[in-house]
Parts: sequence; C-alpha cells; structure tokens
Amino acid sequence: MRWEVLKSEIMYRCRIFAVRRDESRSSLSGQTADFHVLETSDWVNVVPLTHDGQVVMVRQFRHGIRDLTLEVPAGLMDPTDRSPADAARRELREETGYAGHTLVPLGVVHPNPAIMNNRCHVFLARDVELVGAPQWDGTEEIAIETVPLDRVRTLILDGTVGNALTLVAFHLLGLNSGGDAMGRCARAT
Amino acid sequence: MRWEVLKSEIMYRCRIFAVRRDESRSSLSGQTADFHVLETSDWVNVVPLTHDGQVVMVRQFRHGIRDLTLEVPAGLMDPTDRSPADAARRELREETGYAGHTLVPLGVVHPNPAIMNNRCHVFLARDVELVGAPQWDGTEEIAIETVPLDRVRTLILDGTVGNALTLVAFHLLGLNSGGDAMGRCARAT
Repeated sequence: MRWEVLKSEIMYRCRIFAVRRDESRSSLSGQTADFHVLETSDWVNVVPLTHDGQVVMVRQFRHGIRDLTLEVPAGLMDPTDRSPADAARRELREETGYAGHTLVPLGVVHPNPAIMNNRCHVFLARDVELVGAPQWDGTEEIAIETVPLDRVRTLILDGTVGNALTLVAFHLLGLNSGGDAMGRCARAT
Repeated sequence: MRWEVLKSEIMYRCRIFAVRRDESRSSLSGQTADFHVLETSDWVNVVPLTHDGQVVMVRQFRHGIRDLTLEVPAGLMDPTDRSPADAARRELREETGYAGHTLVPLGVVHPNPAIMNNRCHVFLARDVELVGAPQWDGTEEIAIETVPLDRVRTLILDGTVGNALTLVAFHLLGLNSGGDAMGRCARAT
C-alpha cells in the first residue's frame, strides 16, 4: 500500500513550515496523484509537575484559533538543541521560568501523519521549581497557571484544555503511570 | 493578551487547506507581527467498538510521514455533512464498511491551535457491525484491522499507534468512561 514519490516541489515557505507538493504513484493501483505536506521541525511537549502535584501550564493567545488556550509548555526544536530532551528543558525554562532535575520521556507521536512530516516528543518533568523569570521570544506573551493534576480531567471534559497535543501528553503520562489517565499518575510518578 | 488582525491574505491554496498570512497587533505590547495559519475544514475521529470489545482500526499509507499508520477512522467534514455526527457516520461507513446505531460525542479538540483554525470532533460508535463493502475515495487504500480495546495501551506505548488524534480519541474515551484510559472503558461503555 505504499506510494512512491515521483517529484517534489516546495510551493510556499515561511518561518515555521514549508508547503511541499509531492507527485506520487501507488504501488497497489499504479495511479498517480498530488499530495500536499507541511515540512516542519519536530516539536516537544512537557508536563511539568511540582513536588505537590501541581501542573505548570501556560495560557496564551493562539493565532490559529484566534483565542486564548491553556496548555502544557511546548515548542519547536531549535537547530541548537542537542536532543528532544534538551529542547524540552529549554522550552520549559523559557516559557515558564520553571526547571526540574528529572526529565522522563513519555513517548513520541505524529501530530498529523496525513499532512505533516514531523514528530512530537513528550516528556514529564518531575519536581519542577521556579528558578527565575521566563525568557519569552519576540512575540510570546504567556501567563503561568498551576493546576492540580487531579483537576486536569475536568478541564479537558469541560473544554478549557483543548489542544490535542496537550491531551496526548496527559494520555501518555497516564499510560506510563499504569493505565489511569488522571487519577493515579501524580502518585505513580 | 489578545492580538488584533490588521490584514489577512491567502498565500497558497490546495485541495485540503489554504495558507493564510495575518498581520496582527498585540493589545499588550502594541507590536505588530506576521503569523501563518492553515485554514481547513473541521475533522471527525471515531472509535468504532464492536459488541465484544474490538476496535475497528484502519491501516493506510500517510503521505506526511511516508509510512503506514494504524489509526481510528477519521476524515474531513464535507459541505454535505449536516453535522459532525453525520460526518463521523459517513467516514466510518466509507472507510471500513462498519456502521453502528449509537454514536456518542466524546469531545471537541483543536488539532493545532497555534497554526490551524479547525476543530476535531471525536465520537464513540457503539456496537458497530460490518454492513457492506468500504467505499473508498479516489486515492484511499485501506486495510481494516480489529484490535481488542485492552491491547490499545500496548500499541500506543510501543509506537504502533502514533497518530496524535487517535491518542486523543482514546484519551477522551477513557475520561468519559470514568478516568481509566484503557482498562475499564470497554465495560463502562
């Protein structure tokens, strides 16, 4: 069921992605067709947990939906990051001013395998503490909110937390903690 | 922390999305900057469960990552769909040949609020049965696989199931079933 790429062309490019058009041929049917793909860097998402079970979350304006969201810290990997874990530590520190000693990899997902080529690396940062002021980039404006982990379930169900990749992070946290998405993970980790 | 859009322009358009560039101004700092957004239709994702606790999943080639994936049935809403629930029923029937009488809304998320303007509507389809042959569109090539619900956790943790929106669907299924992401939901639903 694979498709062979016959021709590729970048159709548009901006700071955070490029739009690529592939002409591909099905090995099954032999037909050819065009498919559009967004090329972008890998992302990192990190669930920062304090020693007393609070999740450090970020509230910010998101230009895609033109509204404020409540999410876990996240961002694109920089060319200067030596690893996804480095990128997670950097994003956590820059966006929130928090840092933690133990970073636990929770998993790697494809944000959108149909039209995006990148992966998202998900981490738990344990026992995080406020170590300084946030260091936002040029257009970042972020409010920090700490949320008890056992309240996250309610915030997802009532739509307050709605970023798919934030839900993925809590899902992987739950699975890595023994299957209970929200209840036991504060204790299990 | 909101940004006001001063000017918008469509920079590129293809069958499934348009790339829009907004020039926006921060109400906090007064600075202006450009932001790129993908305009696309809302999506639907559906977890189809048979009466004996099997999830009907689809294996297909995904052009974004140029590899095969194992996911729950999903797709874009058509202009002809009267509601997200209608779209979910249609996608389930077209992609798999399965249908069910009871469709339960599990939640609505933003696939990527930073750079996409759309939502994804997630459903559980209970007691689905094979009612006919799949009806794939021009380029769809899909293999149907049924997976016991209690095996999904393992398939996510070992990376076999890695589409972020499929993970979101199982997370919402778990939360709606009382907090246990994988274990109790077969029984609870």
